[in-house]
Amino acid sequence: MAILVTGGAGYIGSHTCVELLNAGYDIVVVDNLSNSHPEALKRVSEITNKTFPSYFIDLLDRDSLDHVFKEHGIEAVIHFAGLKAVGESVQQPLRYYHSNLMSTTTLCEVMEDNGVRKLIFSSSATVYGIPESVPIDEEAPVSAINPYGRTKAMIEQMLMDLAQSNAGWSVAILRYFNPVGAHESGRIGEDPSGIPNNLMPYIAQVAVGRLSEVSVYGSDYETIDGTGVRDYIHVVDLAIGHLMALGKIEGSSGVHTYNLGTGRGYSVLEMIEAFKRASGQPIPYRIADRRPGDIGICYAEASKAVQELGWKAARGIDEMCRDAWRWQSMNPRGYRTQEPVAQKV
Amino acid sequence: MAILVTGGAGYIGSHTCVELLNAGYDIVVVDNLSNSHPEALKRVSEITNKTFPSYFIDLLDRDSLDHVFKEHGIEAVIHFAGLKAVGESVQQPLRYYHSNLMSTTTLCEVMEDNGVRKLIFSSSATVYGIPESVPIDEEAPVSAINPYGRTKAMIEQMLMDLAQSNAGWSVAILRYFNPVGAHESGRIGEDPSGIPNNLMPYIAQVAVGRLSEVSVYGSDYETIDGTGVRDYIHVVDLAIGHLMALGKIEGSSGVHTYNLGTGRGYSVLEMIEAFKRASGQPIPYRIADRRPGDIGICYAEASKAVQELGWKAARGIDEMCRDAWRWQSMNPRGYRTQEPVAQKV
Repeated sequence: MAILVTGGAGYIGSHTCVELLNAGYDIVVVDNLSNSHPEALKRVSEITNKTFPSYFIDLLDRDSLDHVFKEHGIEAVIHFAGLKAVGESVQQPLRYYHSNLMSTTTLCEVMEDNGVRKLIFSSSATVYGIPESVPIDEEAPVSAINPYGRTKAMIEQMLMDLAQSNAGWSVAILRYFNPVGAHESGRIGEDPSGIPNNLMPYIAQVAVGRLSEVSVYGSDYETIDGTGVRDYIHVVDLAIGHLMALGKIEGSSGVHTYNLGTGRGYSVLEMIEAFKRASGQPIPYRIADRRPGDIGICYAEASKAVQELGWKAARGIDEMCRDAWRWQSMNPRGYRTQEPVAQKV
Repeated sequence: MAILVTGGAGYIGSHTCVELLNAGYDIVVVDNLSNSHPEALKRVSEITNKTFPSYFIDLLDRDSLDHVFKEHGIEAVIHFAGLKAVGESVQQPLRYYHSNLMSTTTLCEVMEDNGVRKLIFSSSATVYGIPESVPIDEEAPVSAINPYGRTKAMIEQMLMDLAQSNAGWSVAILRYFNPVGAHESGRIGEDPSGIPNNLMPYIAQVAVGRLSEVSVYGSDYETIDGTGVRDYIHVVDLAIGHLMALGKIEGSSGVHTYNLGTGRGYSVLEMIEAFKRASGQPIPYRIADRRPGDIGICYAEASKAVQELGWKAARGIDEMCRDAWRWQSMNPRGYRTQEPVAQKV
């Protein structure tokens, strides 16, 4: 069974490729490299000691995509590819709508054309917007508050309509909470371009000296220490969640939606503290104002995935920080260069 | 000032072209003719005694569209183009999402590229889904219940995000209730391909002998006579509403949303009765079961458009039926042929 992995060179994609290969699946990667590096795939190959075909094409290139399906007898798709920066989506909404929606409709059309109707879709807890209460279960209302989140919510809706139109479709929608960490080898990890948008790579780049201090946005939320609380999940746990979802869509039909989170939250200051412990580095930080659109607390009700997928996050905050640090310290500039960086100023 | 009219050969598009030309606007039409006929544009020209450029291209053909903008110095766009059959959208959701969303994002991108940020978008009362109460005002929750309606709701959202990202945008979203009737000349009108999805052209084709009887879906709704009630609006009134909206977006910015309806509803049986009066033809009908997804009663709170656009529907049910009948009897097969049809069996 060959699994097509779109966005396979990205952060979550590359870790999922490792788990798929280790579990004995044949995989085929497509990635347009718009926000990822082919080096990640080379390292997936090294970690697993397996090779696989990769195509550096865009999902909007329908003919090339169709060729990939025909060439490799694809049987299911894990669809990671997509633009993912909230702030950027507010600035460039057309780009987000065009790219995320169109790549997905084109992918689904090519799947239809090739009789492939098993799909795992990367959604996000962002679709919940400002949650009415925590933990957030899968029945909570979908009401994204930025264009990025809205593309995810719209694609979820599209997939439900698609499954309604043809009972042959079997779809798992996975709503990620906050993926962090890296493969324990330290060979692959999160490699944001420019200043990181997310907390963990930001902390890691402060620890390694690329950035000078962490800005902590808001210290007056109703949380343990006033800073924002999120449900961080180790990316390897998340990757394994995709394997379990793959088993699920094999034996069912329709659309199934799962939160992938740990079910518990940590504050920004707790994360900084844990990273300090894991890295042995100082992590200077500065309290700043809340950012508009940020919420105080968000964590998953994670029991549906336990019950229906037999999946539960196994790696705790210390492993998240340890593995993130290993990746960051072994690859201070991510995939872009092996050169050492200057010490922090 | 040149106005680009997408879908200008369609039902509402062609009537709006007439009103724009009569009001002295220069227009440019683009239409992919997927559900329309070039004859409609020829007749627009005859009715108005004016000529205008037309391009039979698809909005997804970005390069051609860009050429049209550059060639004609487009200053504002009225965007009618789109797939519009509810039932078909349930059967072919991917086609609807791909076509309606992508044509609109591509259009907006080309507008951005050319510094054109004035847009009137054809939305639909369908975005309200099952209304909590009637009349429906513009603040009622958007919760479409089929893929067609969801494409309209998603595009509305996209346009709001777009206007949020750049204050140069000035957008009017027009939510049409149930457009019926035809230009009083009888030269242009609604020309559905295949069996009509909407009541009025169905009635008209029964009156002219192309169909044998009207199916009335549901006679036990809580309405005046048990049959479904809708807010029918004369297509010429609707077309004039676009002219008024064009004035509005000239002098404002951001997104403004208006219901275009009359503010009163008529039942299916009332429409049949009125059409019988207007046409002098028998209109046999048969009561059938309710259709899933249909609602009992839907009509607009129409006062916002009165207040802010200075627009109010002026044509009543008898003119709607008279003009629909004139069109249908003068063009029993629509634009497709001038041949007389066989009498009804």
